[in-house]
Amino acid sequence: MIKTAIIGASGYTGIELIRLLLEHPQAELVSIGSRTYAGKKLCDVFGNFVNASKLKFTERIDPTVDVVFFCAPNGIAMQQAGEFLEQGKKVIDLSADFRFKDAEVWEQWYKTEHTAKALLKSAVYGLAELHRDAIAQASLVANPGCYATASLLGAYPLVKEGLVGNYLIIDAKSGISGAGRRADVGLLFAETQDNFKAYKTSGHRHFPEIQSQLQALNKKNTPMLSFTPHLLPIRRGILASMYFTTDLDKRALQDVYQSSYANEKFVHVLEHGKMPEVRCVRASNNCHIAVGYEKGSSIAKVFVAIDNLMKGAAGQAIQNFNIMCGFNEAEGLTAIAPLP
Amino acid sequence: MIKTAIIGASGYTGIELIRLLLEHPQAELVSIGSRTYAGKKLCDVFGNFVNASKLKFTERIDPTVDVVFFCAPNGIAMQQAGEFLEQGKKVIDLSADFRFKDAEVWEQWYKTEHTAKALLKSAVYGLAELHRDAIAQASLVANPGCYATASLLGAYPLVKEGLVGNYLIIDAKSGISGAGRRADVGLLFAETQDNFKAYKTSGHRHFPEIQSQLQALNKKNTPMLSFTPHLLPIRRGILASMYFTTDLDKRALQDVYQSSYANEKFVHVLEHGKMPEVRCVRASNNCHIAVGYEKGSSIAKVFVAIDNLMKGAAGQAIQNFNIMCGFNEAEGLTAIAPLP
Amino acid sequence: MIKTAIIGASGYTGIELIRLLLEHPQAELVSIGSRTYAGKKLCDVFGNFVNASKLKFTERIDPTVDVVFFCAPNGIAMQQAGEFLEQGKKVIDLSADFRFKDAEVWEQWYKTEHTAKALLKSAVYGLAELHRDAIAQASLVANPGCYATASLLGAYPLVKEGLVGNYLIIDAKSGISGAGRRADVGLLFAETQDNFKAYKTSGHRHFPEIQSQLQALNKKNTPMLSFTPHLLPIRRGILASMYFTTDLDKRALQDVYQSSYANEKFVHVLEHGKMPEVRCVRASNNCHIAVGYEKGSSIAKVFVAIDNLMKGAAGQAIQNFNIMCGFNEAEGLTAIAPLP
Amino acid sequence: MIKTAIIGASGYTGIELIRLLLEHPQAELVSIGSRTYAGKKLCDVFGNFVNASKLKFTERIDPTVDVVFFCAPNGIAMQQAGEFLEQGKKVIDLSADFRFKDAEVWEQWYKTEHTAKALLKSAVYGLAELHRDAIAQASLVANPGCYATASLLGAYPLVKEGLVGNYLIIDAKSGISGAGRRADVGLLFAETQDNFKAYKTSGHRHFPEIQSQLQALNKKNTPMLSFTPHLLPIRRGILASMYFTTDLDKRALQDVYQSSYANEKFVHVLEHGKMPEVRCVRASNNCHIAVGYEKGSSIAKVFVAIDNLMKGAAGQAIQNFNIMCGFNEAEGLTAIAPLP
Repeated sequence: MIKTAIIGASGYTGIELIRLLLEHPQAELVSIGSRTYAGKKLCDVFGNFVNASKLKFTERIDPTVDVVFFCAPNGIAMQQAGEFLEQGKKVIDLSADFRFKDAEVWEQWYKTEHTAKALLKSAVYGLAELHRDAIAQASLVANPGCYATASLLGAYPLVKEGLVGNYLIIDAKSGISGAGRRADVGLLFAETQDNFKAYKTSGHRHFPEIQSQLQALNKKNTPMLSFTPHLLPIRRGILASMYFTTDLDKRALQDVYQSSYANEKFVHVLEHGKMPEVRCVRASNNCHIAVGYEKGSSIAKVFVAIDNLMKGAAGQAIQNFNIMCGFNEAEGLTAIAPLP
Repeated sequence: MIKTAIIGASGYTGIELIRLLLEHPQAELVSIGSRTYAGKKLCDVFGNFVNASKLKFTERIDPTVDVVFFCAPNGIAMQQAGEFLEQGKKVIDLSADFRFKDAEVWEQWYKTEHTAKALLKSAVYGLAELHRDAIAQASLVANPGCYATASLLGAYPLVKEGLVGNYLIIDAKSGISGAGRRADVGLLFAETQDNFKAYKTSGHRHFPEIQSQLQALNKKNTPMLSFTPHLLPIRRGILASMYFTTDLDKRALQDVYQSSYANEKFVHVLEHGKMPEVRCVRASNNCHIAVGYEKGSSIAKVFVAIDNLMKGAAGQAIQNFNIMCGFNEAEGLTAIAPLP
Repeated sequence: MIKTAIIGASGYTGIELIRLLLEHPQAELVSIGSRTYAGKKLCDVFGNFVNASKLKFTERIDPTVDVVFFCAPNGIAMQQAGEFLEQGKKVIDLSADFRFKDAEVWEQWYKTEHTAKALLKSAVYGLAELHRDAIAQASLVANPGCYATASLLGAYPLVKEGLVGNYLIIDAKSGISGAGRRADVGLLFAETQDNFKAYKTSGHRHFPEIQSQLQALNKKNTPMLSFTPHLLPIRRGILASMYFTTDLDKRALQDVYQSSYANEKFVHVLEHGKMPEVRCVRASNNCHIAVGYEKGSSIAKVFVAIDNLMKGAAGQAIQNFNIMCGFNEAEGLTAIAPLP
Repeated sequence: MIKTAIIGASGYTGIELIRLLLEHPQAELVSIGSRTYAGKKLCDVFGNFVNASKLKFTERIDPTVDVVFFCAPNGIAMQQAGEFLEQGKKVIDLSADFRFKDAEVWEQWYKTEHTAKALLKSAVYGLAELHRDAIAQASLVANPGCYATASLLGAYPLVKEGLVGNYLIIDAKSGISGAGRRADVGLLFAETQDNFKAYKTSGHRHFPEIQSQLQALNKKNTPMLSFTPHLLPIRRGILASMYFTTDLDKRALQDVYQSSYANEKFVHVLEHGKMPEVRCVRASNNCHIAVGYEKGSSIAKVFVAIDNLMKGAAGQAIQNFNIMCGFNEAEGLTAIAPLP
């Protein structure tokens, strides 16, 4: 059994990770860190854990843990990861701290100094479908952003081969848990239910994350990117709709995706005529993709659905944990999405 | 007082039109047609009308009415409109029957024969912001589709001047009332709440409607269109997100929209930094538009919010009614969206 | 035109009152008070008011106003109302400050000292259906709580006549706007959507408000009260389900309610077999009531639906405003609930 | 491995049961019966099963199955169960066909003839917390109704000991999946979202089911029952709020519940001050209960939360399956509710 700890365990990705680690057959969850709730029983704060765990929130992480997950806000992991790594522990960071190779890009978009630049080189971007082998060797994994995960899984099969034309338009929609568990009037039920809007339409932080990964895939031939997030009145789930031109015809387009993901456990390219729905991947680590064309048009479309808290955060972190520990990649991630 | 009737009054656009006509200071609603509910009191079928009206649903339209609204499924208005027009009544059709000048396009997309081709020439496409003068002279108005309304209001200022590049990508999202009041498993609460998906991604019927109107605006210089509808888990509201290239800079882009709609009562171009939200136009006839650019990119974005049952259907029908009758265009349409 | 001001205009009851006053044919809204948003344009903070008003939020109330509405938190009106009253203005307080005749009860339940005890005697409890004549004469009206409004309208016809047995069980459910527009994690979309729970099951502050009004109706014969609020995952609306024994048979029960409310403009007793639905009173000032019996049982049931922000707050405040100013009681309150 | 089949597998309880059986370590799901979808792949009809199963819907049940689950509408199991039982199979019926010992009660409430009266005697009512030993011996188990499960778990500790006064008022609220997966206008998203109402307020079919079980618990001392269902705008979940008088004080009340359920795996009596929330039992087989008193009143309150598709249907069916097969009662039922 691998001993694990979560730092920043009381946000939405933290709660989800607690659930997954408690159910994981080869992990033991020994410390759940939270300043806000330190000393309180997990099941008293989150009633879904009644009878599932006797853990209490704490400010002190058990020094014997093997793997540390950071679910804290940006800026915490860069302060604390180094010490854990020196102690020989593995670190999986769900914040943005280690997602960029270039600290300048980070500082430009996140508006604060990066205080652990030395670690950036060894950090591996934890999108298993692109970087599985590197993850297996890594001590420090930067778990991708939720929008970035959906966008990159949608763009990867074409961009790596230089098959996208000049532009790649990504119209992405996310459930509200993506904004975190924060006391913010804009996230209230009465402000968001039955509403819909675009936000941060010029310069969302996942834009450079997607862009830098696309550039790494294909330096010569990266399409100009447009990324627009929208706020869906659902709790969890992301749908990314992508538009672009390509020389591939309909069948070739489908083939490229099918073959790219033929051996993946979590990424499923749907048959022609089926559309990804966020409910079909809810609370699961799956990613559903469909591709197609506008009738009589040369504009191609790709649709990608994930659960932002699972494949977009905690589920992907467990997938990385499994790879880093040499477990079956799907260990603890086989639950089927409950419907309805 | 103008005497009015609704044919097909028990669907969502019908109910909304009943509400608007009952509250309209210069209209009298005398007949509400419904085969399903014929003989039943309006307030017994729809409890929101308790104390607001003593009307009963009927199969017989009062022959003395001045204006007939069709809220029936496609194919009904084309059978019945001719007779009403011969009697000197005005007809406003909220179905798709008279939205195309070219019957062949209709037949190709709607897969049935058009049985009133002779009326197509005189029918006016009822998007007041584009065709106000023609509507004022018309006896037969084809009320636009909901997606088409949002898309055309967003595209019009640029397309009429040939300012859009090669492509116009429209990613549109609609509330569920847009699918009508039909006993369909796919529209159940338990199937749609907390879900999100694209649908009819290749060939939605509003595609040719938008395309034919754009071509009429600017025959030489119509961008290639891509239109993708998505199903939002909200009752009402449409947000259309539009992506394209243009030579205009940010300020010029804003100016084109501001000046295009400067005199419009219902279309409001938001100041830079504000985003349209469907809740802000809910149950109102307003259309909110914002324009902008991706940071450091040449891809422009336009966002358009309307209420699909109001500016996208019944509200726009009243706007046309006002124009056709010579009333103030905003008569009966001044209610502010209730928030939250 | 009566000049009006709102103090605490940026909460949910405040926004609703702004909407109603802007649409009211005999009111002019001159000041909207808010510390948080002072100096900002109303339409920049709440996009539904785009094009509807050029008002800005302010900390200074225009001294020439005739009527002041308090939508501020408890404790503000008791500090400021006196001065306005001395200036000859009328005051309608939507907080709890003046709802109790007995300051001790207030202090016991609200845990703070009452600083305007002298005003309690002249304050009138603003439930028009019970106290219409007193409201017409009042300078200071205490607008009832939302739960109290629904509960009292449901209990009044029987309790005033001593027709309820030993117990009156009220199981009430409210939409989330009832908890106010506050940055509180418990009110987030992701915490409340698809959830349901009872809260404050022992000692909600509307309990003594309902109880004191019932006692005032019938001192000798007040049933023992049980009141339990629940949090509904809807934006607005209250349904109160009431259970009790009575000697009346089914027809007599219906008759008592029909005759009690026969002349009321907003309270509608539904025919046997119809059930109140919160959507049917949404954004309207209506109250729908149904009464009945459990089959083969001596337990009677009453169901009451209102919109908590309308008949439960801002709508009722306008109703009181109309009565105090001698207007038609329904002025500005005739809008039909939009469906769906 | 026990071979299992589901008849009527395409409704909401059926889908949930498919999910649970696919994940159950000791069950093999071999036949999923559906007339509507016969021949279609499960994963093509319900996208959550992509990659989880290659099963197809069928009209023919594999004759080698050991256990048959009926998720079909009422009236089917009574026709087919006999033959399966004669073949030595075990039958778990999720419909209402075998829930009453007295066929007359069934016929009175369900308005059709009962065609398998001979089986009623041996059928065991499958509420494990009340009838565990009988279930272990049974070949035919009648899985309880969802409302009945919540109500009986709430009433059982007191009623069996005769501790409830004259009346037991149950105000129950259920998510919409409880109404089934049927093309019914009343269940549409646009009709139910943001709405709330009571329904079948005089004579819901779970009334006699609850009543007959309470009478069986305590023939002499059954309180008069009032049961009122309400329709919650959530997908799944039931909260039953129960009101009654009792001679027990607060502490004794809590003790009775704690001790009644001390050894139960799925029923958890919350500590004083905690309230059951439907989200905390979502997609789990847990039942959360809280008890308390109105402040200064003699009216006691009990709140019970379950997931109507889990402990109220499919989860409870698996619990019964485990008991009947001699497995650990929690086998396949240990998943923690995902939050948010």
